[in-house]
Amino acid sequence: MKGRLLKVTEALQSRVDGLKELIKRMKHYTEAAALMQWDLETGAPTKSVEVRSEVIGTIATESFKISVSDEMGKYIDELSQPENFDQLDDIMKASIKRLKKEYDRFKKIPSDKYQEYMVLLAQSQAMWKEAKSKKDFSIFLPNLKKIVEFQRLFVELWGYQGHPYNSLLDTFEPEMTVVKLDKIFSELRDKLVELHKRIVATGYTPDQSIFEQSFNIEKQKELSIRVLNSMGYDFEAGRMDESAHPFTLKLNPGDVRITTKYEETKLMSALYSTIHEGGHALYEQNISKDLTYTPLNEGASMGIHESQSRFWENMLARSLDFWHFFQKELMEVFPEEFKGISIEKIYHSINKVENSLIRIYADELTYGLHIILRYEVEKGLITGDIEVEDLPRIWNEKIQEYLGVTPKDDSEGVLQDVHWSAGLFGYFPSYALGNIYAAQFVEKMESDLENYQVMVRNGEFGQIKNWLIENIHRHGRSLSPEELIKQITGEGINPKYFIDYLEKKYSDIYGFSI
Amino acid sequence: MKGRLLKVTEALQSRVDGLKELIKRMKHYTEAAALMQWDLETGAPTKSVEVRSEVIGTIATESFKISVSDEMGKYIDELSQPENFDQLDDIMKASIKRLKKEYDRFKKIPSDKYQEYMVLLAQSQAMWKEAKSKKDFSIFLPNLKKIVEFQRLFVELWGYQGHPYNSLLDTFEPEMTVVKLDKIFSELRDKLVELHKRIVATGYTPDQSIFEQSFNIEKQKELSIRVLNSMGYDFEAGRMDESAHPFTLKLNPGDVRITTKYEETKLMSALYSTIHEGGHALYEQNISKDLTYTPLNEGASMGIHESQSRFWENMLARSLDFWHFFQKELMEVFPEEFKGISIEKIYHSINKVENSLIRIYADELTYGLHIILRYEVEKGLITGDIEVEDLPRIWNEKIQEYLGVTPKDDSEGVLQDVHWSAGLFGYFPSYALGNIYAAQFVEKMESDLENYQVMVRNGEFGQIKNWLIENIHRHGRSLSPEELIKQITGEGINPKYFIDYLEKKYSDIYGFSI
Repeated sequence: MKGRLLKVTEALQSRVDGLKELIKRMKHYTEAAALMQWDLETGAPTKSVEVRSEVIGTIATESFKISVSDEMGKYIDELSQPENFDQLDDIMKASIKRLKKEYDRFKKIPSDKYQEYMVLLAQSQAMWKEAKSKKDFSIFLPNLKKIVEFQRLFVELWGYQGHPYNSLLDTFEPEMTVVKLDKIFSELRDKLVELHKRIVATGYTPDQSIFEQSFNIEKQKELSIRVLNSMGYDFEAGRMDESAHPFTLKLNPGDVRITTKYEETKLMSALYSTIHEGGHALYEQNISKDLTYTPLNEGASMGIHESQSRFWENMLARSLDFWHFFQKELMEVFPEEFKGISIEKIYHSINKVENSLIRIYADELTYGLHIILRYEVEKGLITGDIEVEDLPRIWNEKIQEYLGVTPKDDSEGVLQDVHWSAGLFGYFPSYALGNIYAAQFVEKMESDLENYQVMVRNGEFGQIKNWLIENIHRHGRSLSPEELIKQITGEGINPKYFIDYLEKKYSDIYGFSI
Repeated sequence: MKGRLLKVTEALQSRVDGLKELIKRMKHYTEAAALMQWDLETGAPTKSVEVRSEVIGTIATESFKISVSDEMGKYIDELSQPENFDQLDDIMKASIKRLKKEYDRFKKIPSDKYQEYMVLLAQSQAMWKEAKSKKDFSIFLPNLKKIVEFQRLFVELWGYQGHPYNSLLDTFEPEMTVVKLDKIFSELRDKLVELHKRIVATGYTPDQSIFEQSFNIEKQKELSIRVLNSMGYDFEAGRMDESAHPFTLKLNPGDVRITTKYEETKLMSALYSTIHEGGHALYEQNISKDLTYTPLNEGASMGIHESQSRFWENMLARSLDFWHFFQKELMEVFPEEFKGISIEKIYHSINKVENSLIRIYADELTYGLHIILRYEVEKGLITGDIEVEDLPRIWNEKIQEYLGVTPKDDSEGVLQDVHWSAGLFGYFPSYALGNIYAAQFVEKMESDLENYQVMVRNGEFGQIKNWLIENIHRHGRSLSPEELIKQITGEGINPKYFIDYLEKKYSDIYGFSI
């Protein structure tokens, strides 16, 4: 009997080892393709692009092929059998679940449809760009209609419980549903609109003229390096470069790179981009090494990932406490430019609320409204309640309703984001969820770390970083967002904390009582 | 009949297309692996290295597997059949020949032997480094013995005509033989030794103190960019970075990168490294696009490649004419540092002849003696006339004989070069051949371009670059070195021109009659 059991275990182990090798191989291809992409965005010569794009295609296709290969299917199938599955350790169990979910998703799309969709997306980026630059939605319309049709088809093929949009949400935020989101977003929307009205009513406009100077780019870089060092970003496991759009890219656990974009007249834009990407990068740098070469070696969800960037960027680095520390750093790099400027002046200036048209430039308050608008539009597109042709009109009505502004053309309205041209439906809610999660984490952090406020004021972020690692980062994707937030805070997602945070912050800056 | 002929042609075309696709695929893997290697050497974070090395291994192995695959073998076999081969165009004919040669070479080594050799090489680099740093040949001895045994084995497996060393030479310099090299090198050696004696006899030592200052690194970079621009290096098809050892790397025809190493006290070292790598890069940037995705899309040989770097570095940029132009550039970047320094002083200083122990720091004259020494040693090792144990003694005897110096330990003697630890036997002669080829090219260039000297004095290198492209670069590897030199100069390789060049140059600088 013992001999037989041993034999079973050996056979199981050999399957597990085989699967791990296959995942490793897949990740090797992904890493190679990712480095080439990084290179393209950080300084590859222009004449390299044509061939390099083909090379990325060849290598990325290999990675995709492995993920949907019969070999992968066989491993998943065998290891999902209860008699095998029950013997696996927790990491392998969670890995199998995730692999199976992705494998099934891909397999449900007929390969000719998938091919057709890939070609459509490749064209759509160009069409969107042209439409945006010519401020003409009709240029993008035919492609967007096809993309939306594909999304509807995928939803049908993948299946769903409850609302069809749930199927898309699940891609980015596992277990999130329309029922939950409707409740969260309706509470949030009402409060944001109300708060926004109160702010406007004060008539106060923070002065931002101090940032209208020109700031030396090399010194801006120095400031970025300083802030990343203070956050605990590990430069031995990453590097910082420049690109047209800032991003964080994990190549392997010892190589998580970030980029920033510098402009002489946009000091704060570069600084807060850096902090934002630094927040993402800290997450990726600190996922437990036990998860290397598993499908769990990434963030729990897009929303949780965004909570990490937003925590550092907004909750920490846009706080008055932070500036008690960082003003000194700023003065060391730009002594002339900020001579005689008070901490409060900087604090008010970087937290100015505006009736913004453009999501990526929005303040912490109006940002949520931008997301809710997109969420409502996407739901309507998937159910068919909204037709693609009507998008510009609906967009403009909604932004007038929520923010009291109307785009002068579609380039600053419905055409502003790249996401839909890349087929990313169901992604936008993650941004708002990130803020909500982050506020819940901060609440808990403040109760766990007695001197939280003092630490922030002193720029001593070591314990804060360790709290994030211990509670969030190290788990990677081995817990769902809901498991994670419940494990940390004892309750599920709850917008209350984010609303409280905003009320407190803006009533203080704009001088009204709550 | 016509129909049948058409059918044959179609079948043939489909084979040719299939082979091209296979080569393309192989090159895609090579490019991905090369970019990762570039990244490792130009700034990848230290903690990325372990995983990245594995990824490179995975991707490079794929490329190698294709090159020795049954699919490749079948294409080569079919297309080598006279009834097919005769119908191919010249490029495809040359491609098939080259693929067949490499395929046969690899296939002749049993795969377990190849595996063993790869493991040995991987270890040997570390052993060599340790031996060199501890100045102890015995640390490297066991590995070097095994590597030499493998070289002897390969030579037997590959077969050879005449001398066994021919088989190794052919890898780097197609069609070169010991008979030819013995003749060339013996003529060269006698002249170099004689010339060296005459220089020493003058008692003159050019003053190099002007370069003993400290030079700002950013300004050194600016100087490097200036010289590359003047050479016609295409920055849209390449980029310049820093690494511990300068190198040129072709990723694809639109991406040929170079690196330089800067040290504050070594201005000329960085400048001439840049020019050297720039010479290699110009070659790769200007191979005809017709050769893209063929095995001919590289230099004709290592020797011809080296002729291009040496032409720019030595024959052009170490000439008095060049400094008539470049002194102005130097003064614009370093006005204080070179105030009042004459062109002649710079010219003498950068052409100082020394009894060097280290090859890579050797001047143009003694460099050849370093190579001849290695050539004689390698021949002896392959035939068994020299045993590995005796290397330090033989090395020291020869360098005393040729250069009148004795290393104080093996780190500046037999252990100085990395090549043997990497299995590169038969490579060293290319360096000397490069100088010889370059002198022959210059001779022809001067007769083809009436105002050659004026162009150099004015820093107008456009016609010179075009001459190189037209006569050398565009052909890639579609001609053998011998075909190439004969096509250009009407005669085969001949050391006379290089010797004449050296005599003229050094008699002028050191003031003796020839």
